[in-house]
Amino acid sequence: MRIHIQNPPGEQDFAITLAQWQAALARGPSLGPVEVSIADDDAGFSAAMREAEVLLTWTKVVRARFPVGALPEIAPRLKVIACTSAGLDRLAPFDWLPEDVLLLNNRGTHAAKAGEFAIMSLLMLAAHMPRLATAQREGRWESRFGSVLAGRTVCIVGLGTMGGAAARQARAFGMQVIGIRARPAPHPDCAEVHATDALDAVLPRSEFLLLACPLTPATRSLMDARRLALLPRGAKVVNMARGAVWDQDAACDLLESGHLDGCITDVAVPEPLPPEHRLWRTPGMTVVPHVSSDDPATYNDRTLDILLANLAELRAGRPAPNRVDPARGY
Amino acid sequence: MRIHIQNPPGEQDFAITLAQWQAALARGPSLGPVEVSIADDDAGFSAAMREAEVLLTWTKVVRARFPVGALPEIAPRLKVIACTSAGLDRLAPFDWLPEDVLLLNNRGTHAAKAGEFAIMSLLMLAAHMPRLATAQREGRWESRFGSVLAGRTVCIVGLGTMGGAAARQARAFGMQVIGIRARPAPHPDCAEVHATDALDAVLPRSEFLLLACPLTPATRSLMDARRLALLPRGAKVVNMARGAVWDQDAACDLLESGHLDGCITDVAVPEPLPPEHRLWRTPGMTVVPHVSSDDPATYNDRTLDILLANLAELRAGRPAPNRVDPARGY
Repeated sequence: MRIHIQNPPGEQDFAITLAQWQAALARGPSLGPVEVSIADDDAGFSAAMREAEVLLTWTKVVRARFPVGALPEIAPRLKVIACTSAGLDRLAPFDWLPEDVLLLNNRGTHAAKAGEFAIMSLLMLAAHMPRLATAQREGRWESRFGSVLAGRTVCIVGLGTMGGAAARQARAFGMQVIGIRARPAPHPDCAEVHATDALDAVLPRSEFLLLACPLTPATRSLMDARRLALLPRGAKVVNMARGAVWDQDAACDLLESGHLDGCITDVAVPEPLPPEHRLWRTPGMTVVPHVSSDDPATYNDRTLDILLANLAELRAGRPAPNRVDPARGY
Repeated sequence: MRIHIQNPPGEQDFAITLAQWQAALARGPSLGPVEVSIADDDAGFSAAMREAEVLLTWTKVVRARFPVGALPEIAPRLKVIACTSAGLDRLAPFDWLPEDVLLLNNRGTHAAKAGEFAIMSLLMLAAHMPRLATAQREGRWESRFGSVLAGRTVCIVGLGTMGGAAARQARAFGMQVIGIRARPAPHPDCAEVHATDALDAVLPRSEFLLLACPLTPATRSLMDARRLALLPRGAKVVNMARGAVWDQDAACDLLESGHLDGCITDVAVPEPLPPEHRLWRTPGMTVVPHVSSDDPATYNDRTLDILLANLAELRAGRPAPNRVDPARGY
C-alpha cells in the first residue's frame, strides 16, 4: 500500500513526522507492506499523487489541490483521502469527490482535550469568568459570585466524540445533561436525549447550552436569534461546533441586553476574526481562536492510530469507522 | 444560649436571614434552648452585645467593633466569636481578643466551590486562557494550543479545605500532585507531601503551582521573587490564598519576560485593586475579584451548619473543630 502524507507548508504545531509515522506503524495493526512518503511542497505532492492509494492531509490542502473534476487526473490510483479534521464542512459540497474515493474524517482524536475544554468552559461560565474578563479589561473590581455546577442543567447539541466527552465531564460534576442529536438514541451520560426538533421545548429549561454538532445543511443557523432568545435569562452558551451553527451577532445582542450571562466560543465567522470585529469586545463574550480540542502532545499519534485502524478494517473487507457520508456531510 | 448574628450594612449576596437560621437549627444538632437576634446596624449590635454569648459575623465587623481592650466592656458575656471567613489574617495581631473568648473560623464552607475554582484554573492555564484573554483584548487571533492535564505536575501549597479540594480535583484529572504544608503529614490525593522548607527543591519540577495556604507570619511573602523564578520556564500559577503570600509584582515581571506562561489570582494587594493597577493589564495575568470560593447558593447554610456543629461540640465538653489558634494565626 502506498500512503502519502501532505503537511501544509510552514505548519509548526501539527506537521506529521516520519518518526511519528514509524512509531504508529510499530504499535498499530498489521497492514502488510506499506510505503510512505511525506511532503509539504508542490513537487512532493505531485510526485506522490501519481502512485499514492491513500492520502492523509488537511482539509485546506484537499480544497486547494482538488478542484471539481480534477482528482482522477492528478491522483489516478487514489482510493482513500483521510483528513486531520473531525469536521469536514470545509469540503462541502462534495462534488469534487469521485464516487470510488473514500473520504475519512478524524473523529475520535479530540475526546480528551475536548472534554477538558467543555468542563473548563462550563466552570468558567458558572463562575461568570467572561463577565469578569470584561471587568478586568476596564479595571473594575466587581464582585460576582458563582455557584457550583451540581444540579444545574446543560443541553448539549451533538453527541459525537466532542459532545459525548462534554456530557461525560458534565455528568461527573453532577449536572443534569440533556442531549440533542439527529437520531435520538439514548446516551449513557445524558438523563434525556431528544431529536433536533425538540430543541424549542428544551431550550427554556437549559441554563447552560453547549454546541458540539457538525456543521451540515441541517445544523447551519440552528441556533438562530429566535432560538437563542428561548434560553432563560442568565443563560450561558459554549460553542465548540462551528461559527455558522449559531447567529453570533444575535448572541452579542443578547449579551449586551443582559439576557445571556456569558458565552465562550472556540469558533467564529470569519476565521481568523479581524481585529475590529464586534465579537472581541462584546461584554461577557470570551473568544478562543479555534484551539479547544487539539492537543499538540497527542494529536498526531491519535490521527495516525485512527488512520491505521481504518485501513486495517478496509483491508479486512469491513466498513471504515471514520467514513464520511457526503450526503449527510459527516 | 444567646446568639447574635451581625450582618454588614448593605450586604447583598451573603446577609444571613432568620429563615436560614431556623432551617439550620431544624436540621442541626440539639443545642438546648437558643435565642437568636439578627441585625445589620449599630443599635442592633449594641443592644445584642449586652447579653450575647455567641457572635457570628464578618471579620470586617470584628475589626471595626473591637479595638484593643474594648471587648470586655462592649460584650461582657461573650464566649465565642465565629467568623464567616476561613482566613482570619485580617484580625491579626490578636491582641484585641481576651483569652477567655474563643475564636472560630469558617473552614469547611468552601470545599466544593474552591475545588471547582481550582480545577477550572488549572484547565484554563493548561489551555493558555490568560494569554488568549490578553490576545482578545488586543483583537489578535493567535493560535496557542494546550495539552490535557493528565501526567503533569502541580505543587499545592496548603492542604486545608481549599488546597485539599484542589488536590482531589487535580488527581481526578490525572495530575501528579505534590503537597506542601506546615506539618508534612501524608494526604490521600498527593503523591508526595513535604514541609515548607522543601519548597525550593520542589519548585523547579512544578509546571503548575497553586497557592491555598492561610496568610500567617510564616507564609507572608513565601513566594517571593527568588522562589517564583525557581519555577520552570512556561510555569503557571494559581493564587487562591492571599495577595501577600506571593510577590505579585515579581509575578508580573516574570509574565512580561515570558518565564511564566500564565497566572490566575483571586486575591490582590490591595483589595479592591485600583483601576490603574498594573495587575489588570499584565499579559497572561487573569484577575478574579476574590470570589473564587464563595457560593451564594450554599454559603450561609454551610456557615450555619459549621457554627452549630462547633457549638454542639463545645456543649459536649469537646474542643471546637474550627477553633483558631491566635499564636499560629489559623
